[in-house]
Amino acid sequence: MAEIVEVADLADPRLADFRDLRDVDLRVSLEAEHGLFLAEGAKVVRRAAEAGFTPRAFLLQPKWVDGLADVLVATDAPCFVLPEREIEQVTGFHLHRGALASFERKPLPDLASLVGRPGRLRIAVLEDLVDHGNVGLIFRNAAALGVDAVVLTERAADPLYRRASKTSMGNVYAMPWTRVRGMEDILRVLREHDVVPVALTLADDAITLDELAAMQHERLAFVFGTEGAGVHPKTEAQVDHRVLIPMEPGVDSLNVAAATAVTFYATR
Amino acid sequence: MAEIVEVADLADPRLADFRDLRDVDLRVSLEAEHGLFLAEGAKVVRRAAEAGFTPRAFLLQPKWVDGLADVLVATDAPCFVLPEREIEQVTGFHLHRGALASFERKPLPDLASLVGRPGRLRIAVLEDLVDHGNVGLIFRNAAALGVDAVVLTERAADPLYRRASKTSMGNVYAMPWTRVRGMEDILRVLREHDVVPVALTLADDAITLDELAAMQHERLAFVFGTEGAGVHPKTEAQVDHRVLIPMEPGVDSLNVAAATAVTFYATR
Repeated sequence: MAEIVEVADLADPRLADFRDLRDVDLRVSLEAEHGLFLAEGAKVVRRAAEAGFTPRAFLLQPKWVDGLADVLVATDAPCFVLPEREIEQVTGFHLHRGALASFERKPLPDLASLVGRPGRLRIAVLEDLVDHGNVGLIFRNAAALGVDAVVLTERAADPLYRRASKTSMGNVYAMPWTRVRGMEDILRVLREHDVVPVALTLADDAITLDELAAMQHERLAFVFGTEGAGVHPKTEAQVDHRVLIPMEPGVDSLNVAAATAVTFYATR
Repeated sequence: MAEIVEVADLADPRLADFRDLRDVDLRVSLEAEHGLFLAEGAKVVRRAAEAGFTPRAFLLQPKWVDGLADVLVATDAPCFVLPEREIEQVTGFHLHRGALASFERKPLPDLASLVGRPGRLRIAVLEDLVDHGNVGLIFRNAAALGVDAVVLTERAADPLYRRASKTSMGNVYAMPWTRVRGMEDILRVLREHDVVPVALTLADDAITLDELAAMQHERLAFVFGTEGAGVHPKTEAQVDHRVLIPMEPGVDSLNVAAATAVTFYATR
């Protein structure tokens, strides 16, 4: 059972995991250095625990001590309890959902282990997608629509960062994922395991998503690029198919999260 | 040609359209009272002008006076020019894109006029969707994926509100839309014009989206409900089909914006 700690002093060094959450740069380096991540909201916190991550500490409004009793009973991590306003002073922002927890990260798996099993496979590859909200939404879409694993390039946003896990509704924790430095390595490992890499593009000489679906590939990896520039030309040149979601003329493309939902659905 | 005004005093009453943009309640009542809306970002501003809305005023960083010259040349509205920091003082928030404009609203059309023309028709009905970001994203999906018009219930968020037009990438301006007080009236008008209303649901006794697509209805209206509660049970009971996007067990539903993208794509 977690030890319930009534915090007497907001400067208590044991609150370190929860400080200055609005400072993205600080948080990214702090979380990397200590191998931790933060979960926000009772549902997201519970999902992280259910997925087997080890809690480091909790920071809760009083009402959430009962609300998360099932999670707290299974850990020895300290649970700091503070009123809403004082949590705001520690974290530096207004916490809508009144529940925070920090967890230990786990080592990331090899890509080969994620694509090693035979049979039907759907992989999402996020090339340099830097927006945490989009990355979270894509994990949510992937989990709902039968994607088996997500691969991120080195520059892509951290799925365990608070904003990403929040927009994913906690689906970043159970979904298998890893990070691989460069696209060459990703494409090589995919091919070694008979996974067909395709890139979503806006180029009008690409095949359509319906044409891809009709090919009935058993093992597919979809590469999605940044909203601005899309998939890198070098990557487009190396995949087996460039794939277009047909859209009305004169309209901007779908945002990348919507494009993933359509792609996963059409090829499920 | 717009008159370029170098503002001497930030309290200048002519800046009224642009004050306190972070105060949603204030803005909603002010924009309703004066029949105006705000567009943010050069691209979104240009789209509003291209869609035929009449500019009231512009508030630009100096660099955007050239960037929006094509828009400014076609209007007599005043164009206030201020450095980034002073714009921030007027609006109360940091403006990433340095260009704002206010426009006159136009009267909303009758629903009957939006569904009156014969032939293939796709309508999105947003029942009480209150999140401006989601409403904007749905307009973007609708524009990209061949939806002809959007109908909102009385409580649904304003598509012309700054945050909605921004997430829509300005696609709220050219897309025909209207607002109708209650679902009964919406369903009645749809039926009078041979449009088949269907509701997206999570109920597992619904037909699947693929089954709906296979029916090849020529004229369809999709009702989407709030993220929390979904479509109202009363509405579900009145539509012709309840439709489910099949998802993996144990996973949250797609968010409503992703669900619209999948729905529009699968039935286009």
